[in-house]
Amino acid sequence: MSRKPVIVGIGRTAYSRNSGKSTLTLAAEAAREALADAGFAASDLDGAATYQVADSASPMRVAHAIGSAGLRWNLDLMGGGNYATSVVANAAMAVQAGACDVALAYRSLNGRSGRRFGRADGALQVGGEQQFAGPHGYLTPPQWMAMWTRAHQQTYGSTCEDLGQIAIAQREHAAANTHAVKRDRITMDDYLGGRWINEPLRIYDCALEVDGACAVVLTTEERARDLRHTSVEILGHAEFTGEGGSWDQWPDLTSMYSVRAGPELWARTGRRPEEVDVACMYDCFTYTVMVTLEEFGLCERGQVGRFFEEGRATYGGDVVVNPHGGLLSEGYIHGLNHTYEAVLQLRGDAGERQVEDAGLALVTAGAGPYGGGMLLAASR
Amino acid sequence: MSRKPVIVGIGRTAYSRNSGKSTLTLAAEAAREALADAGFAASDLDGAATYQVADSASPMRVAHAIGSAGLRWNLDLMGGGNYATSVVANAAMAVQAGACDVALAYRSLNGRSGRRFGRADGALQVGGEQQFAGPHGYLTPPQWMAMWTRAHQQTYGSTCEDLGQIAIAQREHAAANTHAVKRDRITMDDYLGGRWINEPLRIYDCALEVDGACAVVLTTEERARDLRHTSVEILGHAEFTGEGGSWDQWPDLTSMYSVRAGPELWARTGRRPEEVDVACMYDCFTYTVMVTLEEFGLCERGQVGRFFEEGRATYGGDVVVNPHGGLLSEGYIHGLNHTYEAVLQLRGDAGERQVEDAGLALVTAGAGPYGGGMLLAASR
Repeated sequence: MSRKPVIVGIGRTAYSRNSGKSTLTLAAEAAREALADAGFAASDLDGAATYQVADSASPMRVAHAIGSAGLRWNLDLMGGGNYATSVVANAAMAVQAGACDVALAYRSLNGRSGRRFGRADGALQVGGEQQFAGPHGYLTPPQWMAMWTRAHQQTYGSTCEDLGQIAIAQREHAAANTHAVKRDRITMDDYLGGRWINEPLRIYDCALEVDGACAVVLTTEERARDLRHTSVEILGHAEFTGEGGSWDQWPDLTSMYSVRAGPELWARTGRRPEEVDVACMYDCFTYTVMVTLEEFGLCERGQVGRFFEEGRATYGGDVVVNPHGGLLSEGYIHGLNHTYEAVLQLRGDAGERQVEDAGLALVTAGAGPYGGGMLLAASR
Repeated sequence: MSRKPVIVGIGRTAYSRNSGKSTLTLAAEAAREALADAGFAASDLDGAATYQVADSASPMRVAHAIGSAGLRWNLDLMGGGNYATSVVANAAMAVQAGACDVALAYRSLNGRSGRRFGRADGALQVGGEQQFAGPHGYLTPPQWMAMWTRAHQQTYGSTCEDLGQIAIAQREHAAANTHAVKRDRITMDDYLGGRWINEPLRIYDCALEVDGACAVVLTTEERARDLRHTSVEILGHAEFTGEGGSWDQWPDLTSMYSVRAGPELWARTGRRPEEVDVACMYDCFTYTVMVTLEEFGLCERGQVGRFFEEGRATYGGDVVVNPHGGLLSEGYIHGLNHTYEAVLQLRGDAGERQVEDAGLALVTAGAGPYGGGMLLAASR
């Protein structure tokens, strides 16, 4: 089908601890770069989608800022990294359905100098799920994730050192990524010496809050033929919002959305986990890398520490996990930078950190009961 | 195609000035009714989408509340009535693309007892467009719309009496709608005697803020074959987010999103405005009915007052505009109740207010630079 949607452009700002810019300015920068990367003019843009938590600029404003002649489709999603792959998948559906021809998916945030996700902002949500947990001080993602991590440790015997292996490997990868905010290598001693954020999670287990924006551009396969880069195809997307219905409780705390989305992704695409060359696993915490590797079927349950220790998650191993250093080291652009990296790798444009013959990339997004995974391939 | 998406169920709560219920409870009630109306169990639900302004319950929570086994697709859109048709159109795309099989689109709000859209809530948005207009007290939809209305009056010679004709006709329709919150007929004297909200808009020009929820259920044409009601097909949807990029300014204030979405809807569907039997025109204010009737091509520019006066917008005329009384009289369920009414009419289930041989319905959503329109037909 000529309307098959493909990713044809990527763009981003510098990632920093203090951008000194508005989220509108950051979004416009990333959007302009992504469109230029594809070979489009701003006036070609007729679709846009983002996700935010009232901390960023809407598609309407970004489109206007860069000189779009108006959008024929847009989504302004209220939510976090759980939407980081589905924002792309929905843009793809819109292109496929003919709602628009050139769609932008972006995330822009001042996640360090502005609203920080790792901290409670003092405002208790009235009527939401936090009304029950909040009064007990149970308010932030590291607190939730710490409880899940502890449950996993008790059930499967995973250890802090297992998490440490993930943190160390990703920082090692970031050393080759000039865009990463943290590039200094760490040892297990460094990891274990890191301060507690919420036990059993240490500072090195937590995504690096940064300011910045990231964007990808999609269009139809037909229009992509005239463009500059190798197109990247979306082989499939699967998301799941669990039966627990909240961030605080669901039937099995050692499991995540991926227990359902993982198998569904393979069923939808007809591919297998063993075929994945690059795995950009959502790493708001090391813990989410662990559980999604298990549940997307890249590693046996409880064996993730060993998987990293044996070098199976890096160059020369089974699969390269987060070659850019992920959210832990490159920076927390709320997960959309995982798609950026996957596209870069599939194009063969990742330079010093290029994964050899990268043909298939898995990108995941989200944590706990709610998230998704997307399988990307270079379209040659 | 067997995956062609159709609307198969509708549900709603009572509409009132004080529900005494949470938006989660209201959403769950409407969702349960819509699923039951279709003939689905709650466990069949695997997709959900809503739009809100941080005043309502997310798809994750609603799905859990009613007993869904989890969602495979969801959108939690941050926005107003501008999304009232696109929330349905996006659900349709998701069904068509196979992201889910049974999708709910809903809107739940305590729009009278909770957050009222017609009032400034005291919180100036920092960094948003209101940072420039807000300090001057230019904060609420009736203020914006009043300026646009004045511009239309100066440019096209439309009058307050023209707006009055719309208000009178819709209240006349509401008299036959037991679900409407306001059913008392009004005369032109009543209308002109109404108090100013923002000159030239009077109380009767403004949508009736109410509490309540409304939901529609979509599935594939194939699954619809076994269900209870006549399916309703989405012939097309067109939305436009204008080049102005804000609520405060865009090139022509006498025009709206519909100047682009209108012609595009007819181009996409191959149908003509003259074929429409039922027009559910988004009426946050009488003014939006006026301009969308012009720009979707149902009436000549500047002739809308006469169009209503001559009975062309009611039973026996060219098209029945808002047979339920619309947001002005039935209540402001943020526009999704327009889709509910269109489905009811196309099924032939509208009782006393049934439009004879209703085969084609236009539903519009939004105001100013941003909104959409959707064409629905009974699938016989």
